[in-house]
Amino acid sequence: MTKFARYQANGSISYGIVEGDTVKEISAPPYESYQETGKTASLSSVKLLAPVVPRKIVAIGLNYRSHLGDRTPPKVPEPFFKTTTSLAGPGDDIVIPKSALDEGVQIQPEAEMSLVVGKTCKNVSQSDALSYILGVTCGNDVSARDWQRDDLQWWRAKSSDTFSPIGPFVVTGLDPDNLRLKCRVNGQEVQNQTTSDLLYDTKRIIEFVSGFVTLEPGDVIMTGTPGSPGDIKPGDTVEVELEGVGVLTNPITAGK
Amino acid sequence: MTKFARYQANGSISYGIVEGDTVKEISAPPYESYQETGKTASLSSVKLLAPVVPRKIVAIGLNYRSHLGDRTPPKVPEPFFKTTTSLAGPGDDIVIPKSALDEGVQIQPEAEMSLVVGKTCKNVSQSDALSYILGVTCGNDVSARDWQRDDLQWWRAKSSDTFSPIGPFVVTGLDPDNLRLKCRVNGQEVQNQTTSDLLYDTKRIIEFVSGFVTLEPGDVIMTGTPGSPGDIKPGDTVEVELEGVGVLTNPITAGK
Repeated sequence: MTKFARYQANGSISYGIVEGDTVKEISAPPYESYQETGKTASLSSVKLLAPVVPRKIVAIGLNYRSHLGDRTPPKVPEPFFKTTTSLAGPGDDIVIPKSALDEGVQIQPEAEMSLVVGKTCKNVSQSDALSYILGVTCGNDVSARDWQRDDLQWWRAKSSDTFSPIGPFVVTGLDPDNLRLKCRVNGQEVQNQTTSDLLYDTKRIIEFVSGFVTLEPGDVIMTGTPGSPGDIKPGDTVEVELEGVGVLTNPITAGK
Repeated sequence: MTKFARYQANGSISYGIVEGDTVKEISAPPYESYQETGKTASLSSVKLLAPVVPRKIVAIGLNYRSHLGDRTPPKVPEPFFKTTTSLAGPGDDIVIPKSALDEGVQIQPEAEMSLVVGKTCKNVSQSDALSYILGVTCGNDVSARDWQRDDLQWWRAKSSDTFSPIGPFVVTGLDPDNLRLKCRVNGQEVQNQTTSDLLYDTKRIIEFVSGFVTLEPGDVIMTGTPGSPGDIKPGDTVEVELEGVGVLTNPITAGK
């Protein structure tokens, strides 16, 4: 089990390995060949960033029975794309667009176990799928429900700037399909389920998505959200907790 | 009017300025600060590539009245994302996934005038919009109609690998809203319209998209397709022609 971080310290951005309260800098992203540089810092002295910079964020819709409501379970996984400018890191603001506030658009968090791709792949079989995954992290698939319902496709509903926080760490060696996933809003639990309840598990998601779309190192796959997370508004704080990874915390603010 | 290309020659990839049959290498992508390196090549001796490598491909749905059929014109532009691994260049194969062929999925080209973003921008006004555009190119928003209709969101329908050819050049100084756009399949014209018929023009698209999503240098915005382009199958050749830019040609092949 290795815990990777990306962080800013002394004005520069590094990747590192976290051990206890220390982060040991490495020379390259964790999905490339890297060495330890010998530089270390205390975790409390650095600003943690999104642990990877994906070229692609895939998310899976309708992937927990508890989230379906009266909808029929899908016959295959139901991916969609979140564009990469929606990325945010631990502690970053989730900024609700001004027009969403003006129009009274309903905004919700979605806690999601998120896979980080380690190697380029296409047409992967289920038996090989896990070998292409570097590790897992917490993801929050922030969603503007009115736009999700009314727009032709989910673009601003899911990909407005800051609508894809991930972090704080990418952790290797966990079983992605057996992790406790929670969401809290202002300290109150609103989601709590295990990823063993996923309708389509990690292997099937990788097989299906890679059958059409090449996956690249650093790509993030948010695997779906359980239950009904409730609403969020400026002033709130959202925490996504994934067993073995930690807590991703983001305050909600109002866009100007 | 400057015509930019990206190309491979002698095993390395360069950007360049095309003048007649010559391409003059430049030191950086056209949306960065660049100098001419002094190296030149004849156009016929290089392999042209997608003229930019976008971090984001946005496409606009339902943006010509002639494409709407009996659907109501949208009240706002209707963007969606094509993921960047779907990018292809001039001459590259458009590969129809094997499962699409097995399932008899209907595949169609969509000729689109495509904008290339020159500068990072957010919340742009219509009066400033054109200053953030580097130039225009030909785009082909290849579409798998059955998946577009049946999947929850347009992912493999629009973003299967090779489903986003662009090129051959990015041309500056043209009026994006007054260009003749054509599509031919095996030499036969299947689309022919002017971009002055766009329901939402370039300024409105930039204003609307950038109100929610940051646009970055090199990003591509496919602005919509006119009419009904007909079907394509392995063995066919598709040409997208945009006035002032040239012809983007791609053969269709079968995935394995």
